[in-house]
Amino acid sequence: MGRETEIRARYSETDQMGIIYHANYFSWFEIGRTDFLRQMGMSYRGMEEKNILLPVIDVGCKYIIAAKYDDEIIIKTRITQLKGVKIQFNYELYRKNDNILLAEGHTLHAFVDKSLKPINFRKKHKDIWESLNKNLE
Amino acid sequence: MGRETEIRARYSETDQMGIIYHANYFSWFEIGRTDFLRQMGMSYRGMEEKNILLPVIDVGCKYIIAAKYDDEIIIKTRITQLKGVKIQFNYELYRKNDNILLAEGHTLHAFVDKSLKPINFRKKHKDIWESLNKNLE
Amino acid sequence: MGRETEIRARYSETDQMGIIYHANYFSWFEIGRTDFLRQMGMSYRGMEEKNILLPVIDVGCKYIIAAKYDDEIIIKTRITQLKGVKIQFNYELYRKNDNILLAEGHTLHAFVDKSLKPINFRKKHKDIWESLNKNLE
Amino acid sequence: MGRETEIRARYSETDQMGIIYHANYFSWFEIGRTDFLRQMGMSYRGMEEKNILLPVIDVGCKYIIAAKYDDEIIIKTRITQLKGVKIQFNYELYRKNDNILLAEGHTLHAFVDKSLKPINFRKKHKDIWESLNKNLE
Repeated sequence: MGRETEIRARYSETDQMGIIYHANYFSWFEIGRTDFLRQMGMSYRGMEEKNILLPVIDVGCKYIIAAKYDDEIIIKTRITQLKGVKIQFNYELYRKNDNILLAEGHTLHAFVDKSLKPINFRKKHKDIWESLNKNLE
Repeated sequence: MGRETEIRARYSETDQMGIIYHANYFSWFEIGRTDFLRQMGMSYRGMEEKNILLPVIDVGCKYIIAAKYDDEIIIKTRITQLKGVKIQFNYELYRKNDNILLAEGHTLHAFVDKSLKPINFRKKHKDIWESLNKNLE
Repeated sequence: MGRETEIRARYSETDQMGIIYHANYFSWFEIGRTDFLRQMGMSYRGMEEKNILLPVIDVGCKYIIAAKYDDEIIIKTRITQLKGVKIQFNYELYRKNDNILLAEGHTLHAFVDKSLKPINFRKKHKDIWESLNKNLE
Repeated sequence: MGRETEIRARYSETDQMGIIYHANYFSWFEIGRTDFLRQMGMSYRGMEEKNILLPVIDVGCKYIIAAKYDDEIIIKTRITQLKGVKIQFNYELYRKNDNILLAEGHTLHAFVDKSLKPINFRKKHKDIWESLNKNLE
């Protein structure tokens, strides 16, 4: 049930090693994550407007082959965990022209409100919870 | 009455040309600007907490010599304009080890509140206005 | 002869004012610029591989209405100057859903080689020069 | 044998949640790492000039309390692994004013040359290896 998003690596994302600076993979993951929600018919922007925020509480990334400027990248995103106050997404980044896996990672999020206090998401937003749960692998 | 702030160019700020990516000079200007206020005894963080925001409405930068990774940079900041709803800062960036001018630029800001509506700063915050005005060149 | 490119504002590009951080408009301009070249059948990546670099030597931007997270943005890019060692691009950013102008700016570039020395582009790369010149407004 | 580096959270590093965007912790780790080397009398800039690069191959970060704009942050950096072709750094981020742990993470690096090929660092750069090894915990 993974969903795919395509981006192109930006010049501003490179570093002087001639590759994409490693921290930028996490903003790519964020693009995969919000596009995943959009493809489900949800909107992270809309969630924030309803006072649901998803700050990151744990991340990891394994870098296999360096992405380079102008590479077209496919981000494959999946939901791999969904509990009362937490959701985890996993990501794989592929180089489009040869379908090689460049990196894989995860981000774990808490459901909180604007004051950054945890919310029992399953209870308070049952409909959204169930949509997410259908996409859990 | 310019004030000086020192920073060191970060690896994350480089691009594959082997120099500091040009957009990052504006976050350096921001550091000069907030440090300018701090040296005056003010705090931009505190201003935002009092519902005074300074979004940027016009910027410019002239790049003379490229800053490189690990360069120590001196940011010289001045206030060059202060009107009812606007303030302008000018910046010069020097490479510390040889005191060469690398770039110069400006940022023009509006005084607004959190809803991004303009505020008559001079009237509503007379004390801060006067401190800023003493630093106007 | 302006060309258009569409992007979507990223969460990573916001700041705590709730808008897109101003420096990020310059990486959007860069996307417009490289996509302009791509639409002409050229590739900035390919130019760098041929030892042609386009470092930025002057920029400016006027911010009219703040772009926000998840906004779809249309970047309109034009070439407005082309001289022996310099090229200038101008940009307009429109919010797609209501076609409102959010910002406009320019970037001026030098043609240099990898050692950052100026090259007489018109002479050395006549074919590319002429393509660019056809797009000059 | 951990070493400490102090930074101040930048406005450009915030996001619209009102906290420091999570990916930016990795550029803070990079500052801790290069400052660690500097405190040892080494320079990462110098290493790159000697054709030794340290691309990142695995990272992780656990976020405990959100860092905010203008926070003074202490980065505690240690070397926790040193093998033939790999080095790992661990990091803890503390908020200076109350000494609270905000986050902890790691970065694992390969020793490679400019063509991104692994080098047997221990053999080729024995002196640097031994300095690093003395700092291994």
